[in-house]
Amino acid sequence: MQPILIYDTTLRDGTQGENITFTADEKLKIAKRLDEMGIQYIEGGWPGSNPRDMRFFELAKRETFANARITAFGSTRKPGIRAADDPNLNAILDSETPAAAIFGKTWPLHVTAVMENTLTENLAMIADSVAFLKERGREVIYDAEHFFDGYKDDPDYALKTLMAAFDAGADFIVLCDTNGGTLPHELESIMQSVRQALKPQTGGSRPLKLGIHSHNDCGMAAANSISAVNCGAVMVHGTINGYGERCGNADLTTIIPILCAKMNRPCIPAEKLSGLKSISRYVSETANIVPINSRPFVGRSAFAHKGGIHVSAIIKEPRAYEHMDPEQVGNQRRVLMSDLAGKSNVEYKAKEMGVDLCANGCDSKAIVAAIKQMEEEGYQFDVADGSFQIMLEKFTEQFKPLFDLESFRVTIEKDKDFPCSAHATIKISVGDSHEITAAEGLGPVSALDNALRKALGNFYPDLDTMKLVDFKVRVVDGRDGTEAKVRVFIESRDQDQIWSTIGVSEDIIEASWQALADSFQFKLAKEAARKNQESPGVHAGNEQPPAPVSCNL
Amino acid sequence: MQPILIYDTTLRDGTQGENITFTADEKLKIAKRLDEMGIQYIEGGWPGSNPRDMRFFELAKRETFANARITAFGSTRKPGIRAADDPNLNAILDSETPAAAIFGKTWPLHVTAVMENTLTENLAMIADSVAFLKERGREVIYDAEHFFDGYKDDPDYALKTLMAAFDAGADFIVLCDTNGGTLPHELESIMQSVRQALKPQTGGSRPLKLGIHSHNDCGMAAANSISAVNCGAVMVHGTINGYGERCGNADLTTIIPILCAKMNRPCIPAEKLSGLKSISRYVSETANIVPINSRPFVGRSAFAHKGGIHVSAIIKEPRAYEHMDPEQVGNQRRVLMSDLAGKSNVEYKAKEMGVDLCANGCDSKAIVAAIKQMEEEGYQFDVADGSFQIMLEKFTEQFKPLFDLESFRVTIEKDKDFPCSAHATIKISVGDSHEITAAEGLGPVSALDNALRKALGNFYPDLDTMKLVDFKVRVVDGRDGTEAKVRVFIESRDQDQIWSTIGVSEDIIEASWQALADSFQFKLAKEAARKNQESPGVHAGNEQPPAPVSCNL
Repeated sequence: MQPILIYDTTLRDGTQGENITFTADEKLKIAKRLDEMGIQYIEGGWPGSNPRDMRFFELAKRETFANARITAFGSTRKPGIRAADDPNLNAILDSETPAAAIFGKTWPLHVTAVMENTLTENLAMIADSVAFLKERGREVIYDAEHFFDGYKDDPDYALKTLMAAFDAGADFIVLCDTNGGTLPHELESIMQSVRQALKPQTGGSRPLKLGIHSHNDCGMAAANSISAVNCGAVMVHGTINGYGERCGNADLTTIIPILCAKMNRPCIPAEKLSGLKSISRYVSETANIVPINSRPFVGRSAFAHKGGIHVSAIIKEPRAYEHMDPEQVGNQRRVLMSDLAGKSNVEYKAKEMGVDLCANGCDSKAIVAAIKQMEEEGYQFDVADGSFQIMLEKFTEQFKPLFDLESFRVTIEKDKDFPCSAHATIKISVGDSHEITAAEGLGPVSALDNALRKALGNFYPDLDTMKLVDFKVRVVDGRDGTEAKVRVFIESRDQDQIWSTIGVSEDIIEASWQALADSFQFKLAKEAARKNQESPGVHAGNEQPPAPVSCNL
Repeated sequence: MQPILIYDTTLRDGTQGENITFTADEKLKIAKRLDEMGIQYIEGGWPGSNPRDMRFFELAKRETFANARITAFGSTRKPGIRAADDPNLNAILDSETPAAAIFGKTWPLHVTAVMENTLTENLAMIADSVAFLKERGREVIYDAEHFFDGYKDDPDYALKTLMAAFDAGADFIVLCDTNGGTLPHELESIMQSVRQALKPQTGGSRPLKLGIHSHNDCGMAAANSISAVNCGAVMVHGTINGYGERCGNADLTTIIPILCAKMNRPCIPAEKLSGLKSISRYVSETANIVPINSRPFVGRSAFAHKGGIHVSAIIKEPRAYEHMDPEQVGNQRRVLMSDLAGKSNVEYKAKEMGVDLCANGCDSKAIVAAIKQMEEEGYQFDVADGSFQIMLEKFTEQFKPLFDLESFRVTIEKDKDFPCSAHATIKISVGDSHEITAAEGLGPVSALDNALRKALGNFYPDLDTMKLVDFKVRVVDGRDGTEAKVRVFIESRDQDQIWSTIGVSEDIIEASWQALADSFQFKLAKEAARKNQESPGVHAGNEQPPAPVSCNL
């Protein structure tokens, strides 16, 4: 079977979604994850439209991507100018990406009523822009915006726009259902007509390679993508979790497993499919968007069984109520009353962290059950490796606290329109020594962080290298009748590592404290382990200057 | 065109979804709403399986339904007994519904491996059960469970089960994709084969009426339903919002507008379509499930535009980026503010909010520039319409503060492993009056919220109906060398609206305060405007009991 190329536009069209924004750094991290998954094209942004996207391409230039071609997006040239004079096309060139995607108009409504352009000039804009980028060595993906609406309105003109791009050398012609109003049976009939009509004109040495870019306004984005593949499309555009404007883009976390596991169409390497749930979560966490539990394949409920009949049947025969093995996509079966799953994950993870689950006569089954219970309460250990390790150590009685809290008090004051002020007093003990101290901060967590840092500094000078880099808060499960909880997630780093910790409580400061205390404990334990490994006579100084501390919370 | 019958199973299959439960009373209220929409069949529950469902049918007996046939659900008789002796079938009769739905096994895997039954007895169970209910005057809907999986495995046997039901008098034969693993092209090919195979046997006076019941495990439930209609199905099963086990059932809020507005297939009365968003929200509110913003047709983002190009285009021509008029389904266009947006978004949004950008001699260009600057600093107005409106009022000197902060002080204390405690003291002024008060809370923001609510309560009793429903915090990308900032986002609601506010500061409490103060200001301004519209002598009391306040931050 001919392979299907996956073209990810999470970083560009995905960020058109309500509430979805990524910093340039976050975009780069997501791009690296997509590349690891074996996705073939990553559309990084529209460099001509905003500085953030330009910065992403600057960062991307310094990186190596093993599988993916990074792609810069833009429009065809403006009317009435040469392609070489168009700032938008030049911004694409400046991005120095191997591939470029440009979109052009298909629909006379857009060309004339919206853009106030002529149909002839629009064709020239498409041809010139494609040719300009081809001459400069780019692989060109041509996005025929509003293709299906345009075709319904004026099929001849719609085909002319495609031929303008093809004749100018476009490598892929992508049919876009920009407004998301096309139904699969319409799409199939139009795609068949298109292939028929273009056959005589594209029968030369260069094949016509079609792609599909669909939106989910009718809930049909994934179905339309699959229909297009059945009609000969070789490239599928989409986003992780279907993020995108209005109802979103085609969801790659749905399309990839269907192609790989249901239709036997090679797309990403088969062994990468088990990373699907993980990348879905990574992107939703980075965007700080609550993941949809019912999302096909990767959602928390996707393989969750509630009905008693279903549960007893799947115990006998999983196929009875599961259309596929959840582990194929990195997900797991959940039985909503008595959770049986996850033991192997926990054991695997514990081994990886060097924690012996059966140490001190502990029962690994009881530990797994306790973890499940904590996850029910809102902990999420897949994004908090630091806290997970500490918790495993606590459960197995291997935890060695490097400091203890005696008490703290944080006060925040505000007068009229003046900014808030915050200060914290903290008392800790390290072994038999006590330390009480106070500090200000730009907020309560910052004051607490500064006070703790100051108190610990007398005992542990290595703390200077540690820095809080991210802090996220989310309300978990706010159903009426029960108290909502707050989940605080902290990412910290020093010169050689990044680690994440988590706290869950009804109180944001309590939750922050848990995450903060875990983060310091993790750092101190790491330094202690490092010193134990060094030969006794040699002391490792800080070779790098300490990073500036900024926890403004 | 032949009409399509809509069969709603929100009250039965919908409640198999994780976190979805309804009381018998709630079920009845939902049933009344479905009936008002003109939905033809409402499956109320499985009376043989639990007392709550039995109670629903007791309540439903006393009600009149103008359009819908209430339907009781159950399985075929148990193996080896007479239908008349089966408690489950008798419970259906006791429900006294005009229609009954029974499911039977299609797939030999289930018949033999799971149920340890024989294929012959399974056919007898189907025939006996259908005949039993038909003889007692019920309209019978036969659900062929796992039809597509069964057909792939053993087409002859699968067809035999359908014929057993048909010959016994079933009025509808519903093909179920129980595990949700079937793709539209497979479904179409199987349905064509089924129709072909059954034609000779069902060519008599009674036509074969097929239905479709699909699940969303491959994200294809709506597409499969539409494909089935294209292959001749005359009944579509689904749930409001697609609630249901695992990834849910086919979503009627997607299927109904497609049938009505896109395919011209009569289903519910055309004039009822504009109630679609309202019923979607009613069901999600009753289930207390946060609605999915990106849900096709009815989601909050379904007609939300972010990109500047899109916004300037829809102002000229809505069809440019909208596949249908949002008002057709009771939804509305929204223009989101963001750094991707341009001047046209701001002007559009201001107009929508009734704020005159040019009032008091203000320069709308300068306002747009100021908004861009705030977005650079971390504000994100596409998710904070409440704060956006207040900010526009401030820029144009139309802002009327309904309270002023004099000062606050928040203290959080923790001792060893005991939980944190938080309390806040606040002093505000309303006109010439001052109020100082204090409150505790489950965290600093909660304490502040409680104190402010208490202080304002003396002046504004309407605050009781307001509730904080979401709270999110994130650190926003500080450029190197500057302090990182914190963005706090608060979503609030009352009985008829949801609004969002935002605060940005280096201090989390300062940012929370901004968002909190905006949220209260928005609510109070709304109530003031409402009272101005009411005739002086009539005071609108709160008809609903106040919602519990839960802001545990």
